Amino acid sequence: MLLTTLYIIGITAEAMTGALAAGRRHMDWFGVMLVASATAIGGGTVRDILLGHYPLGWVANPQYLAITCLAGLLTTLIAPLVVRFHKVFVLLDSLGLIVFSIIGCRIAMDMGLSPLICVVAAVVTGVFGGLLRDLICRRQPLVLHKELYASVSFFAGCMYYGLLHFGLEETLVTISTLVVGFILRMAAVKFSWRLPVFRIEETESEGDSQKKLEHNA
Amino acid sequence: MLLTTLYIIGITAEAMTGALAAGRRHMDWFGVMLVASATAIGGGTVRDILLGHYPLGWVANPQYLAITCLAGLLTTLIAPLVVRFHKVFVLLDSLGLIVFSIIGCRIAMDMGLSPLICVVAAVVTGVFGGLLRDLICRRQPLVLHKELYASVSFFAGCMYYGLLHFGLEETLVTISTLVVGFILRMAAVKFSWRLPVFRIEETESEGDSQKKLEHNA
Amino acid sequence: MLLTTLYIIGITAEAMTGALAAGRRHMDWFGVMLVASATAIGGGTVRDILLGHYPLGWVANPQYLAITCLAGLLTTLIAPLVVRFHKVFVLLDSLGLIVFSIIGCRIAMDMGLSPLICVVAAVVTGVFGGLLRDLICRRQPLVLHKELYASVSFFAGCMYYGLLHFGLEETLVTISTLVVGFILRMAAVKFSWRLPVFRIEETESEGDSQKKLEHNA
Repeated sequence: MLLTTLYIIGITAEAMTGALAAGRRHMDWFGVMLVASATAIGGGTVRDILLGHYPLGWVANPQYLAITCLAGLLTTLIAPLVVRFHKVFVLLDSLGLIVFSIIGCRIAMDMGLSPLICVVAAVVTGVFGGLLRDLICRRQPLVLHKELYASVSFFAGCMYYGLLHFGLEETLVTISTLVVGFILRMAAVKFSWRLPVFRIEETESEGDSQKKLEHNA
Repeated sequence: MLLTTLYIIGITAEAMTGALAAGRRHMDWFGVMLVASATAIGGGTVRDILLGHYPLGWVANPQYLAITCLAGLLTTLIAPLVVRFHKVFVLLDSLGLIVFSIIGCRIAMDMGLSPLICVVAAVVTGVFGGLLRDLICRRQPLVLHKELYASVSFFAGCMYYGLLHFGLEETLVTISTLVVGFILRMAAVKFSWRLPVFRIEETESEGDSQKKLEHNA
Repeated sequence: MLLTTLYIIGITAEAMTGALAAGRRHMDWFGVMLVASATAIGGGTVRDILLGHYPLGWVANPQYLAITCLAGLLTTLIAPLVVRFHKVFVLLDSLGLIVFSIIGCRIAMDMGLSPLICVVAAVVTGVFGGLLRDLICRRQPLVLHKELYASVSFFAGCMYYGLLHFGLEETLVTISTLVVGFILRMAAVKFSWRLPVFRIEETESEGDSQKKLEHNA
């Protein structure tokens, strides 16, 4: 019950931020609905396809797809409001990230998959929506460059899996993962924590060898 | 029978326009065949993967894949002709769009899915081929910006589903959807009908908040 | 046994070249692991999704995913070494290409699919990893423009399928495909063999018609 409520809040918030990205690319209403839905439910879709977990969530429950499309269209009306209250969205989005991660981990566990795959399912659910949004909008995928986003998802997946594995009661595990994950994410935003960056500067000759190398790969 | 014939005409026409896009990116023959096939049968492939509808159409009927590859290669020989007679292609492509939408809707109905998902299946079948083409060729995805394309697909899906639902005879429903959808699409091209565009102009400060917002999403 | 060993060498080499591409885009560790994994096991993943061949290889054997993530992170430490010994990587990558193609063809054959689809499975396994890498890193997809890469994969698939079909012993077929494919690939690199390129130069009026045409497609 709690997870479902939080999930609906999460996909609504993500759909609205997806719609903003579409608006910055001057897309029409169809584009807005597509990007909104890809951002909000794309992560779960990719996870289910990778795990062979059919039917997909939104195929079984089309109301989720309806929510993301409507939230996207609504955003075209109230964009200035969304931009002004962006702090609320950061909160909702962070909550959504943890909820998505928990749900992804849970589904993989219910399928009896190995620990690594359960955590990967958490990260894919949390992260691939934003990745799809940036691919469709042809932008630098933010999630690959900035802040602890995937890492928070990874941590939430590990914590949820570990605590359940050690026999704690499920509601307790869910709530503690939500609280700790949310605090961690907020701290990462506040203090701009980020992963180390791998940076290859191209000198002329190095660039050449790299090009050759990747070319042949 | 009618649908199969029209389907083959449709994928041939779309493969040829896909090959043109590849040629503008100076791709080699493999790239031409890949983009041609993605344009022509990518929409149906994405639909089947989303619905878990296996085996995919072209895996069960490899001749469709052979047709799109050959049509792509043929285009490299007769490109000037294709460009000159582009009005014929606009007609064939519009026909293809309606045929694809009907087939997509039909498959989802046969799987017993809900009305919304049947219409979504129609739109995905009609639209995602062009979206894949533009992603591979790294272009602005036209279908998210211009004219009534997805909307015509949406309309055709709704009409087909609705008329069948109200008990009309199938051949009659198919033909009327084809005729009405085709006329609608032609009118949309002729009169440049299009969906409203959602346009966020970036002022400096707004741009910043949006960036923050999407960053955190 | 032989194939498994070569497969592990192949995904390690491809993961490292994927990580280099991520480094040139200044991605963080998560981005490095994502691009490394997509490059190394993305081709097999796309193949399995297209064929409906579940569970995916790395879901059933998570150690392969662990290998690609670790190889990616390792590359951030020894990047100059990787760049210097790029000739070794070209060898390993060429070996990997043939191994991937053989495995892809084998899986499709075990599923009882038609010859064309078996060869397509070989090419998808060999080529789509690099295509995904270039899409995520937003680069011109090299595999669509340069050298015989997909063609070598196609040839290896045909040879493997054909020899098995004519009743030769499996180990013998595997080894001869490996040797011949590897030599062919090395020759293609050495002599810069490539497929013909389809090049449409945009004159003003032609560009317009093409735009109209693709627009409507």
